[in-house]
Parts: sequence; C-alpha cells; structure tokens
Amino acid sequence: VRRRDPEELFAAARDGDRVAMARLVSLVEEGGEPARAVGRLTFPCTGSAYTVGITGAPGAGKSTITDRVIAEIRAGDEEVGVLAVDPSSPFSGGAFLGDRVRMQDHALDPGVFIRSMASRGHLGGLSLATPEAIRVLDACGCPWVLVETVGVGQVEFEIVERADTTVVVLTPGSGDSVQASKAGLLEVADLFVINKADRPGAHELERDLNLMLDMSADRDGHAGWRPPILRTVASTGEGIGELWKAVCEHRRALDASGQLEARRSRRLADELREIVVRRLEHRAFSVCAGDRYDALLRAIRHREIDPWEAADRLVDATTARS
Amino acid sequence: VRRRDPEELFAAARDGDRVAMARLVSLVEEGGEPARAVGRLTFPCTGSAYTVGITGAPGAGKSTITDRVIAEIRAGDEEVGVLAVDPSSPFSGGAFLGDRVRMQDHALDPGVFIRSMASRGHLGGLSLATPEAIRVLDACGCPWVLVETVGVGQVEFEIVERADTTVVVLTPGSGDSVQASKAGLLEVADLFVINKADRPGAHELERDLNLMLDMSADRDGHAGWRPPILRTVASTGEGIGELWKAVCEHRRALDASGQLEARRSRRLADELREIVVRRLEHRAFSVCAGDRYDALLRAIRHREIDPWEAADRLVDATTARS
Repeated sequence: VRRRDPEELFAAARDGDRVAMARLVSLVEEGGEPARAVGRLTFPCTGSAYTVGITGAPGAGKSTITDRVIAEIRAGDEEVGVLAVDPSSPFSGGAFLGDRVRMQDHALDPGVFIRSMASRGHLGGLSLATPEAIRVLDACGCPWVLVETVGVGQVEFEIVERADTTVVVLTPGSGDSVQASKAGLLEVADLFVINKADRPGAHELERDLNLMLDMSADRDGHAGWRPPILRTVASTGEGIGELWKAVCEHRRALDASGQLEARRSRRLADELREIVVRRLEHRAFSVCAGDRYDALLRAIRHREIDPWEAADRLVDATTARS
Repeated sequence: VRRRDPEELFAAARDGDRVAMARLVSLVEEGGEPARAVGRLTFPCTGSAYTVGITGAPGAGKSTITDRVIAEIRAGDEEVGVLAVDPSSPFSGGAFLGDRVRMQDHALDPGVFIRSMASRGHLGGLSLATPEAIRVLDACGCPWVLVETVGVGQVEFEIVERADTTVVVLTPGSGDSVQASKAGLLEVADLFVINKADRPGAHELERDLNLMLDMSADRDGHAGWRPPILRTVASTGEGIGELWKAVCEHRRALDASGQLEARRSRRLADELREIVVRRLEHRAFSVCAGDRYDALLRAIRHREIDPWEAADRLVDATTARS
C-alpha cells in the first residue's frame, strides 16, 4: 500500500528497483493527479537519456530488431529502457506475448527494463503519455530509451516524432516504400532499415527509397543529414552492428550541429501546445452540459440565438469559471 | 461594392437573386466576421428546408443521381438548392467541371441553385461551413437542399450526419459494402442505392447489405426504420422515381415518429459543441505564442517547470484574457 506513493516509488526506482519503475509508468498511463505527481518528480531529473524510436508496419521485425539492439547496447555495458507502444491495444503492463518472449532473453539482466504501453485513462492518450513515460526512464538513469511503435497511423507518427533518432523498418516486396512515403515517414526517418534483406526485392526497395529521398530534397530540421539505408536480417543478427553504429553516428551529427537541442526544444514546445489544446477541449466538453447549456440549446432550437453566439456565451462562461 | 453587404445580399437572395445567394455562400466559406453576420441574418429564418445528403465513393455516380433527383423535384414544381461538397479540393465557387456539366442541364432553370463548397478560411472547415451554407439556402426559401459529398472520410461523415435523410450510393463489384461498413455508413444510412445496378454483382451487394443490416440490429435514432435498398441506373434514369419516393417516405416516417425534430435538435447540439471546441482550440493556439509563452518554454527547457504546470498557467492566462 505504501508503495503507491509516487515519491517513494521514484526514490526506489532510482536505486534500481525495476518494479517501482514499472509502477511509475503505470501511474503515468493512468493519468490524473498521480500522473501529474510523477511528472513533477521526474521532470527536473530528465534530459540525459537518448531516445531511439523504432517503427514500421506489423510483421516488419521491429521487435526482433529491438531485441538485437538491446544486446548491442548491453555489449557496451550500458543500461537500456524499452517502451513498446501499441495504440491499437487496450492492454498494457507487460501482458503482451512479445514482451514475455523478450523477457526470456533479458529477464535476468538488471540492465534492461522493458515495458508495454497502452493509453488507458490518460488525457491526450499515448501521444502525451509516451513522453512522460520516457522521462520516467530518463530520470531513473537509463542512458538509452528505445521506443518501439507499431504501424503508421497518426498516433504512432506523433510518438515517433518524439524520439531523438527515428529508425523506420521496412521489408522487401511489401510495398512498404509507398506506404512510408504516404504516411510521411520519409520526413521523420533518420535511418531506414531494410529488414529481411535476404528476401527478393531488397535492391528495388533501396532504389525506391533513394529515389524518394532524392525527390524530397529539403527535409526540415535534419541539418543536411541524409538517412542512410541499412540492410539487416534481424533473425540472424546480420547488420545489427552497422545499424547501431549508424544510430550513434546520427547522434554525433545531431550533437555537432546543435540540432539535438533544437529538436528537443521544439518537441517540448509541441508537447506543451498539445497539452493546452487537450485541457481546453476537456473544458469545452465539461461546459457543454448543465442548465446553462440546456437553456442555450433551447434558445437555438427556437431560433432566438444562433450556434455561434451561443458558443461565445459558453466560452465566456468557461473562461470566467477558472 | 455595395453588394458585399450581407444584409443587402440576403434581401436580394430572398427575392430570388441567385448571384446574391452564391455570394452569401462564399461569405460563409470564407469565415470570420462576414460569415457570422450571414449566420445571424439567416438563422432566425431557417427550419423549413428538408436536407438530403447523398454520399458514396468517387465514381459511384452521385452527381448523375443528384442531377436526376433535381429533375424529379422540379417535375413536382418545387425549388431545390444543391451543395456539392468536396473536402479534398482547395477550389470552390462553381469552378468544378462537374458543376459546369450540370449547369448545362439546369442553368436556365431559376428553380435550381447549384453551388460547390470548399473549406477556404472557415474556422472548423467544411464540417462547420456546410450547415451554415445549408441554412443560407433554407433561409432563402429552398424547400429542398441536396448535399452531395465525395468519399467516406471523417469530414464527409460529419457532413452526411447533418442531413435529414442520408442516401448512401454503392456500386456492384467494388467492395463497397465492406467499405461502407468500415466507414460507419451503415449507421448513418437511411437509404441505400445500388447504382449501375445493371452490372454484375448487384444481387450480391444487396445480399451483403441485408446481412449487415440484420447484424446491426439497434441503430440509434432510426426509430425502427430499416434502410431500404434501391436499385438505379442513373445514366438512364432507371429507378430514380422509386428512389425519390423512398426519400419522401423516409421523411414522412421521421415526421410521424417525432424523430425529425429530435435529429435536428441533436445536430444543433453537436454543432454547438463543435464550435465551442474549435473556439477554445483557436484560443489555445493564440495563447501558445508571445512573451509569456516564450518565458514558460524557456523555464521548461531549463527543467524549472514541467509542461503540465506550464499548460495550467497558459490556460489560466487564456481564460483570464476574455
């Protein structure tokens, strides 16, 4: 019972208690006042972790790549936190099969923390809960945080944009290059990985990607970095060393150009704006109820007042309230 | 120059001036204070028009069906206004090829008003501009307003939901039934039209639709109305008479059950809520700028304050402002 107190959990997590760390992520997922408390505690201690986003279509091999990358990081004797984000799933808390499989590899390694994320009750959903969860891992001392997301929807896109280095995983013969282009992944990718590169079509995919990169000449905030295209066969580990080297090289390039700080600042600004929008939306829904609202609706129905005028009055009431 | 004054335009439009009516719709599209002025003028005079939404995938034959329905309405000597809404197009103002083709049929008929709609600068886009444009036609005395929308995206969906009777146009052999089900059109459809019914697959499509309707037993706000499935060949006019009879029958059923009033009230409530949300969002974006915002961002970057705390302060500032 006492363990639910965020302050105590945070102290324990910083001492290496992985169960406490998992609890903190749960609090963040659940949202509300406990999530706020966790944010207040962790935020001042953040800014050291480097975040790598790994995304791609289902079946592209993201989990296997993530696993191999974990091993690569551990070979360098550094600790790593992993968040597996699945916006389409209502479940969370390490209940995924994928987690359990992976836990077999890393369960005994105290230098690895793996956690699945789902939205639950968090105001703003995963796109706002994920940066907070990353900050928990950051504040608890993980120097590397891997964020694995499924798919190419809007939410995943927003999550991917929150990483320092974004790795987009594609597979040959899947039409992935067109998908990636449509989903705007071309703009956010810092690195492309052609996984299952031993299959037919790897060469064509690489050619397509190069063509698309040639065409999208000016990519904002990339400081002249052209995403390298790497080939891996994650199931055998082939190419993972090169992938990790490329991530570290991208990190150095961002650092040297000052883009890392600029990106992080922009991300915080985006996050702030999103929180503000969500708060006001929330307020809008709470004000669209009650006697005042009902009276205005009646007036609209009787054509005594138009909806825009009614909205003005409601918004004024909202703002007067706080 | 004098013609730009909304009051004068409205007076002229009510006297049958179609150019003035088109100008009023343009003002609504453009948003801002002129749009508000039009809304204030027209809103008290609305509530008489009956709105029919016609939607379906590109190429389903919506325009041809709309044309034929116009002829049907005109055969009964009633006037009709038509809004062709294309959220994907940045153009508007009757510049579409489709309009010009249609105008050949109806250009000399003063009982028909046809206008394309695009979003332009309207706060809230087409989903908020469309009901306002419908009200312009309503207030100018059109007893029937047809709203034709392309596609099955979110915006089109919101527009379709604003009609009194919603007609969903499908074609055989196109996989349309699955699409319709996925897009939630099954829930909003009051009538299904299988157009190009002389093509193979019409029978299968009808069977699929019936099956889906059987499965989605409880459809809110439909008062026991099961959408009839009609067959048309719009190019020859086959089945259009029956389609129009079915629309009129649906209207009678809605009237008799009290559902028409209930639907319209719910729509006004939805519209009001949406305007409130957009207004607050707009306010959020305006407050996420300026010295106060910059100072808070700096404080976040220096880890002196977390984004949620900063959002609270910004929201408080927003609300204090008005």
